[in-house]
Amino acid sequence: MSTKRATKNPTKKASTAEVTGCLIIIGNEILSGRTQDTNLTYLAEALNELGVKMVEARVIPDQEQTIVNTVNECRRKFDYVFTTGGIGPTHDDITADCIALAFGVELIMHPDVIAMLQQREAPPEVMESRLRMARVPKGASLIENPTGGPPGFQIENVFVMAGVPLVMQGMVAGFTRERIKGGAPIRSRSVAAYLSEGEVARPLEEIQSRYPELDLGSYPFYRQDGYGTSLVMRGTDEALLDKMLSEVHAMILAMGGEPITED
Amino acid sequence: MSTKRATKNPTKKASTAEVTGCLIIIGNEILSGRTQDTNLTYLAEALNELGVKMVEARVIPDQEQTIVNTVNECRRKFDYVFTTGGIGPTHDDITADCIALAFGVELIMHPDVIAMLQQREAPPEVMESRLRMARVPKGASLIENPTGGPPGFQIENVFVMAGVPLVMQGMVAGFTRERIKGGAPIRSRSVAAYLSEGEVARPLEEIQSRYPELDLGSYPFYRQDGYGTSLVMRGTDEALLDKMLSEVHAMILAMGGEPITED
Repeated sequence: MSTKRATKNPTKKASTAEVTGCLIIIGNEILSGRTQDTNLTYLAEALNELGVKMVEARVIPDQEQTIVNTVNECRRKFDYVFTTGGIGPTHDDITADCIALAFGVELIMHPDVIAMLQQREAPPEVMESRLRMARVPKGASLIENPTGGPPGFQIENVFVMAGVPLVMQGMVAGFTRERIKGGAPIRSRSVAAYLSEGEVARPLEEIQSRYPELDLGSYPFYRQDGYGTSLVMRGTDEALLDKMLSEVHAMILAMGGEPITED
Repeated sequence: MSTKRATKNPTKKASTAEVTGCLIIIGNEILSGRTQDTNLTYLAEALNELGVKMVEARVIPDQEQTIVNTVNECRRKFDYVFTTGGIGPTHDDITADCIALAFGVELIMHPDVIAMLQQREAPPEVMESRLRMARVPKGASLIENPTGGPPGFQIENVFVMAGVPLVMQGMVAGFTRERIKGGAPIRSRSVAAYLSEGEVARPLEEIQSRYPELDLGSYPFYRQDGYGTSLVMRGTDEALLDKMLSEVHAMILAMGGEPITED
């Protein structure tokens, strides 16, 4: 709920300067409610550091046409696209196939991954299933998996990663600014007060209007000791963020509240 | 990672009989990584009971055009669309405005909500902000908010709810089969084993092929005492689910594993 979005004249400059990212979460287990996704939050925070603003995320089922269409729509719409899920050894792990279809390239067996997968002995049937994880679209580069499992891969602006959080986090940890060319890191400041959103709405709007480069959001909370609002400022200019934070502090005091520091 | 999706001849009957749902999560705080969404999981489980299959979810920022376009695309594509977030009192809570735009109807001040909001005294400026929460698209019906706050609303097949989990959960708890006309409840069976996905891949595929009406997913896990795979069966036919579960049990034993009961 960013008041910036409500300002009548959002600074075009700021928005065009943004490097955008999108996460496609592939997996019926997320849509069925069985599994709570945590990859979006983790990736978003990593992208903030890399100066990439996550501007959309989608959760889609393990269906070929849906995956192909979603990847093709998103890779043209956003600077970077990340996917999680569907790169395991079972016959239903179809992400690699779908990415190859989306880019119109063939799937190849990557020699480095084959060698890695063959290090551990297995019966022929098991090895055959395991080797499915060596399939990558032609022209893709690998994304290292520090947990010891098979790697993910990158093709153009699309990064394909595992869905298991520990594995996905290991892959994201290896992202460098050489590989992902973002802007300045996206920073935030946060302060809370036991004031309702209704009470701070008007003064917040006034503060936001003076800082079009920053994004000021208000988020209500309900705690045992009462309800209040968290005020979060986001942007790339640290000095400006500190200036806005001090204005929000002053506003809270002026409204008879007490600023509560948050991180 | 549903092996059903990989079977060559998915039963058209089953898929056309499905009542589909989509969740649109509106909020920069989710995309920035500040807030971990839990509404998707909660709604998905509630929809399973109502016989509505969640087939897509999107997380989008608080931007008018993005919200309008996403709502219009999804309400035509899915039987039911649910939104969370952006219905508070601050000037940036623009969901109601965007839904009205998407449906091409005007926003009205709902008398019942006005009366409710005016019960609690407030200075004129605060009341003015608070009354923003009485704005609903013309023709919408209200969604009760048992937490005492302002209600959500429904217009055609779109249900607009708060983003705060406790409030959203209270609204979802009020959904009835009169209001949401789903199919048979979607049930699941689950069993785990300390076998790798590679080991169970082939036999799983064989079992799935005999149960086209059911959805068999495999999900690897890594625990201190070793790694293994959870096998989850989903569908509406309880007898068939039990039959498939017993086959998966037998398969695990045949592979030298030990079935571990899961819920």
